[in-house]
Amino acid sequence: MTKTERTYLDWNATAPLSAAARVAVLAALDTVGNPSSVHGEGRALRMLVEAARRDVAALVHAAPAHVIFTSGATEAANLVLTPDYRMGRTPLAIGHLYHSEIEHPAIREGGRFSRDKLTSIPVTPAGLVDLAALETLLVGHDKAKGLPMVAVMLVNNETGIVQPVKSAAEIVHRHGGLFVVDAVQAAGRIPVDIEALDADFLILSSHKLGGPKGAGALVSRGEVLMPVPLIRGGGQEKGHRSGTENPAALAGFAAAARAAAADFADRNARIGGLRDTLEAGMRMATNDVIIHGADIERVANTSFFSLPGLKSETGQIAFDLEGIALSAGSACSSGKVGQSHVLTAMGFDAALGALRVSLGSGSTQADVDCFLAAFSRVVSRRRAA
Amino acid sequence: MTKTERTYLDWNATAPLSAAARVAVLAALDTVGNPSSVHGEGRALRMLVEAARRDVAALVHAAPAHVIFTSGATEAANLVLTPDYRMGRTPLAIGHLYHSEIEHPAIREGGRFSRDKLTSIPVTPAGLVDLAALETLLVGHDKAKGLPMVAVMLVNNETGIVQPVKSAAEIVHRHGGLFVVDAVQAAGRIPVDIEALDADFLILSSHKLGGPKGAGALVSRGEVLMPVPLIRGGGQEKGHRSGTENPAALAGFAAAARAAAADFADRNARIGGLRDTLEAGMRMATNDVIIHGADIERVANTSFFSLPGLKSETGQIAFDLEGIALSAGSACSSGKVGQSHVLTAMGFDAALGALRVSLGSGSTQADVDCFLAAFSRVVSRRRAA
Repeated sequence: MTKTERTYLDWNATAPLSAAARVAVLAALDTVGNPSSVHGEGRALRMLVEAARRDVAALVHAAPAHVIFTSGATEAANLVLTPDYRMGRTPLAIGHLYHSEIEHPAIREGGRFSRDKLTSIPVTPAGLVDLAALETLLVGHDKAKGLPMVAVMLVNNETGIVQPVKSAAEIVHRHGGLFVVDAVQAAGRIPVDIEALDADFLILSSHKLGGPKGAGALVSRGEVLMPVPLIRGGGQEKGHRSGTENPAALAGFAAAARAAAADFADRNARIGGLRDTLEAGMRMATNDVIIHGADIERVANTSFFSLPGLKSETGQIAFDLEGIALSAGSACSSGKVGQSHVLTAMGFDAALGALRVSLGSGSTQADVDCFLAAFSRVVSRRRAA
Repeated sequence: MTKTERTYLDWNATAPLSAAARVAVLAALDTVGNPSSVHGEGRALRMLVEAARRDVAALVHAAPAHVIFTSGATEAANLVLTPDYRMGRTPLAIGHLYHSEIEHPAIREGGRFSRDKLTSIPVTPAGLVDLAALETLLVGHDKAKGLPMVAVMLVNNETGIVQPVKSAAEIVHRHGGLFVVDAVQAAGRIPVDIEALDADFLILSSHKLGGPKGAGALVSRGEVLMPVPLIRGGGQEKGHRSGTENPAALAGFAAAARAAAADFADRNARIGGLRDTLEAGMRMATNDVIIHGADIERVANTSFFSLPGLKSETGQIAFDLEGIALSAGSACSSGKVGQSHVLTAMGFDAALGALRVSLGSGSTQADVDCFLAAFSRVVSRRRAA
């Protein structure tokens, strides 16, 4: 093993651009025009945008007409999370947003809801959204102030734990609520079917899938009940999202969505094998490593672990110096390493923190070997300290 | 002249990606990582984003710290156009938005202002914002309901007419208002200096400059008085705009900004020469062509004309069939050709409409020749009809 390059193990923060997405992005970048123009150039790009819509819809078994393209998942979250909805042309108020404690900040910040209309749903020590607590919250919801909205992510970005979204949907709908599912970390890793999940809205991101940054989608079950637009202007995306469409980003998103759907089982089995080797290697190297969620359903690519005596911030720097890019929680704002809100929600010692390794379609056995060699060195230095 | 390709004369809708921007986009696309990650990959992309911020700031003589990157100009408009501002941490209300009648829909839709808080400022028959009317509106503004905000574009996207923005700024500031300038069609075509214009906020777009779609900026004079964020989440862009940064789009935007600043006078003189040749050729071909704004200060690249007896929709299709991409007004929503709100505001017969030719750095004499040959054929067919 002579590997001199750096080892990228932070696919949950962003996936490297896939070869297929790269080709699609370049072709669209080199196509002149504005998809909203009437002339031939505009019409060609319009077709490209609509083809991308079909590919992204297919990834989550939705109707293409129910895909609203945005600049990313955070924008999609801010579009869907609002007290102001319309049923056709009639205004309809959402009274309160309940979100799990372990949602991404794009959800936890609550979009267009004011702070007093946000309540977080606890998670169990196992890292699963607490369904009994959700039920209690919805029993106590005052419908006179508007419908309840509930947001639960399908896969947690730090732990990789798959959340009981279908059961949550049953509870939410029994209470007449709207159900929003952040599927950003799930798409391409577990099957995502908007109908089977019984979600009213799904949020997707291109760059977590191997597409370019700058594209995301809000996918809906229908078109009758829709949020008031976040970005108004020229009326693109059927008025739901104004601004010149970005054919290069959307073509890349679509190529990534097609690749994510193809070769699904084999790819994830291979990635899961690498992750299991990596975790077995860590356990061999030290018997006190704590692997969060190891006994519960997780996506195949993520390992979130703590090492007693090694703070996550120190650990991240140590691995970075070893040439390994991994994360201490989520990469969500300007280079700051905060305490993991996910660990806190799970009742774990958040001050110690944890490190996240996340793999992807380009990850190899050599990556795992590099990581484990570095892991041994980091562990021995910890003992020496 | 043997030119078999199509002739693209719709640079105000979107400019083809410049060679320099293309190189910058590709380099960033091939750089793995998330600019918000702490590891080496993240830090390298952070530097790239901050370098882009300096280049975009330099284009309008602003401080880099005063550039907020967005997904485009429409998002930037929706960020700045809001009744909810903060002076430091103290909320400050904007009571009303006054915008010129000829603003782009991204401004005319009013962002986060409710419809009852929007008033349009008329324009003169010459196509200039009516400063006396602006003064009257601000005299009548009820400050008890909050400060006034005024939005006037620097260059109109349809006519290319340069608006009296500096004079408008004097009026707005004398009345204690906030002044927003949409500089999307001005940047790279006339000098834009946020201080000299006395604008509180400027809006910029990457793809109108030769950069990629998917990037824009809100540039401010200071950092004290700022709009409440439109998109909340991980806290990127100092909390003003959350969502993973898009280094490829921003690097391309920056390269386009550098190119727009370089070779400024020569480029615009050359483009102005082509435009003047084109307009002289149209007048030679028919003596009834009406060139809007011909007697007033315009940017060098735009020609907006009407032909009695030829509806703009028919004309656009005729030119498209001749292999020439031009526009009937702005390309703002799904392929629809509406009546020009700019012509209506100028008191011209909007039912007849007008056609817009817009040139750019890649335009050539051959493009003008192709256009004029097609123009002659379209004009003769009109006579025959």
